[in-house]
Amino acid sequence: MSVRLLLQQCKSATLKLPADDVLEIGQGVVVFVCFNKTAVEENALKAAQLVFKVKLSEEEGEAKRKTTVDTGGDILVIPQATLGGKLKGNSVQYHNNIHPEQGKVLYDIFCDELEKKSELTIRRGEFGARQVVSMETNGPYSHCFDV
Amino acid sequence: MSVRLLLQQCKSATLKLPADDVLEIGQGVVVFVCFNKTAVEENALKAAQLVFKVKLSEEEGEAKRKTTVDTGGDILVIPQATLGGKLKGNSVQYHNNIHPEQGKVLYDIFCDELEKKSELTIRRGEFGARQVVSMETNGPYSHCFDV
Repeated sequence: MSVRLLLQQCKSATLKLPADDVLEIGQGVVVFVCFNKTAVEENALKAAQLVFKVKLSEEEGEAKRKTTVDTGGDILVIPQATLGGKLKGNSVQYHNNIHPEQGKVLYDIFCDELEKKSELTIRRGEFGARQVVSMETNGPYSHCFDV
Repeated sequence: MSVRLLLQQCKSATLKLPADDVLEIGQGVVVFVCFNKTAVEENALKAAQLVFKVKLSEEEGEAKRKTTVDTGGDILVIPQATLGGKLKGNSVQYHNNIHPEQGKVLYDIFCDELEKKSELTIRRGEFGARQVVSMETNGPYSHCFDV
């Protein structure tokens, strides 16, 4: 895998950034993203397109899942290097993760692509920062995809 | 993989069950678990042992990560069949997931093992139910492991 995505459907979510800025979204999806050291621009773009295209969102009274674009949900993006962790014994190693400098470049490409291609509300967390997430969700909702 | 685990470190978390019961934990870890159709009892036990053994928890002023057992954190277990989803085009299929009846058996084995082997506070969500999760977390914190 080059990019690992964790998508969690939410009713609302909040991200507190280090400078006390707060990002908020309503109904939509929290997108955690991690880049492997093999990742290049093309992978970041493909991962962003997956976020739009994948049918995970529910609409009341509808059995079929729709895309976040169809349901008009918000998107909160959070960089999450820990998703690249591999078990070695009882410890977790992150040797396959991309170098932070290159990761920041791909993270920006990923977020820019989301903003460029949609009318949705997109909020982006800060790459490499320690940040506090709160979220409320409804029902089964976590999906993990490798792109 | 037979079992997929998603571990999210939290400062606190709440799970509302369908009957309006509410499960709460403080500092600790939210454990989402999904069983593949190849999973057997041994895999469920191994996955429970991983939750105890893996060093993911931070302690203030300590650089090294420790186990949840070492730091005395709480554990909230949530069944999460969606983690077994595979992309097919833009839809997600769950054909590799275990049959719910067998999944419930393994889920109970997994939770029982957690309760048996520790002095920690363990709370368990309801298998197959739609349930509302709220959580607050601090810093990077999501790990996904296949067992």
